[in-house]
Amino acid sequence: MHRTKVRIVEEALDANNTIAQANRADFDRAGVRVVNFMSAPGAGKTALLERVARDLPGVRVGVLEGDVQGSMDADRLASLHVPVTQLNTDPSFGGECHLDANMVRSALPELPLDDIDLLVIENVGNLVCPAEFRVGEDARIMVSSITEGEEKPLKYPLMFRACELVLINKIDLLPHLDFDLDKFLYNLDSVNPGVERILVSAKTGEGVDEWRAWLARMGAVPTGAGAGAEARV
Amino acid sequence: MHRTKVRIVEEALDANNTIAQANRADFDRAGVRVVNFMSAPGAGKTALLERVARDLPGVRVGVLEGDVQGSMDADRLASLHVPVTQLNTDPSFGGECHLDANMVRSALPELPLDDIDLLVIENVGNLVCPAEFRVGEDARIMVSSITEGEEKPLKYPLMFRACELVLINKIDLLPHLDFDLDKFLYNLDSVNPGVERILVSAKTGEGVDEWRAWLARMGAVPTGAGAGAEARV
Repeated sequence: MHRTKVRIVEEALDANNTIAQANRADFDRAGVRVVNFMSAPGAGKTALLERVARDLPGVRVGVLEGDVQGSMDADRLASLHVPVTQLNTDPSFGGECHLDANMVRSALPELPLDDIDLLVIENVGNLVCPAEFRVGEDARIMVSSITEGEEKPLKYPLMFRACELVLINKIDLLPHLDFDLDKFLYNLDSVNPGVERILVSAKTGEGVDEWRAWLARMGAVPTGAGAGAEARV
Repeated sequence: MHRTKVRIVEEALDANNTIAQANRADFDRAGVRVVNFMSAPGAGKTALLERVARDLPGVRVGVLEGDVQGSMDADRLASLHVPVTQLNTDPSFGGECHLDANMVRSALPELPLDDIDLLVIENVGNLVCPAEFRVGEDARIMVSSITEGEEKPLKYPLMFRACELVLINKIDLLPHLDFDLDKFLYNLDSVNPGVERILVSAKTGEGVDEWRAWLARMGAVPTGAGAGAEARV
């Protein structure tokens, strides 16, 4: 019984990787770099995107917004005059808890790939399943809010291991929490040694310039070279 | 393709409900009331349990601790000298993002059902899938941290609709956040009108007495009557 279950999961992931490669080829053809943007619910992905999506020097940004239901985040971003496409996972019971390559593929015809340089795919808020499904991205960025505690890298290691950049958000709340930043960083390095990390606050703007520069480098590099290339499917 | 997918999900949920009923019968036979305790990662489930598990008047508490990996939360609770059983979901790729009835069933032989009155099942931190799987509980309690924002009920409606009590946690941080409590409560009532809610802080203890009383009432009521009975599988 257990062996059967594992086999099914692996087949599903194989199929996912095949479709992710097809997505990747289409993104390459259009010269678009792609970020898969992940976190727990409420860690601040949309607020961080609001900070940078409009003004990446020399880089035209588009957003693919993944939610179980609704379009609240997409509406927030559309007000910045950035092209936003909404992808809802709710047709199945309860809605899928992650985006997969096929869902992203189904959205490709709606994406203005010829008019953007960098596509940010905002995944469903979840620290487990999104890390299992590549969608054809160049790099994966995760947001960890310090309100979630120091032990999150140890409890959700796949997510923290799967990403090329960790944004440690809500750093403005540090004086008000019993949060030990050194302990968090120690835990982070124990699951993904040396992974790039930036302390940020979507509220105060701390660290946002550094993140903006990271994204701008990524969006400006010609397809097939430089940052993130090693992270390809 | 789409129709096939929905059918599979429904079959899985039917099987789950069958097993949940078997769990329910075993809990009833032992005279144990059961709470399914859910939230996003880092909302404070374990910290809240630490506040109440040891001193529910007249009620002996046991905990079944669900995690993708590790036993950090179980270790925290065991130090309170409360019986704790660990259930890890990580044998499959990446680990399951929720507990289901069969996972709980597999843990039944390890649970000291004859020595407890109330079993709290701490689910995997996730606002999507845990809401889809009944495990044989009497009631579902969810924790929503105010750091996650006001719009969470609208973005994860199934979770907020599935529970009999909402603990609104980290209320001590209210002065430091741009969080509109009235807006959150309005959103909550729009998906689950009138659901019981308690403002709590695991840090300061605010609201903890009220939650303790809620749990004590539940654990003290003879099986088959009173609070939570209407919520049965």
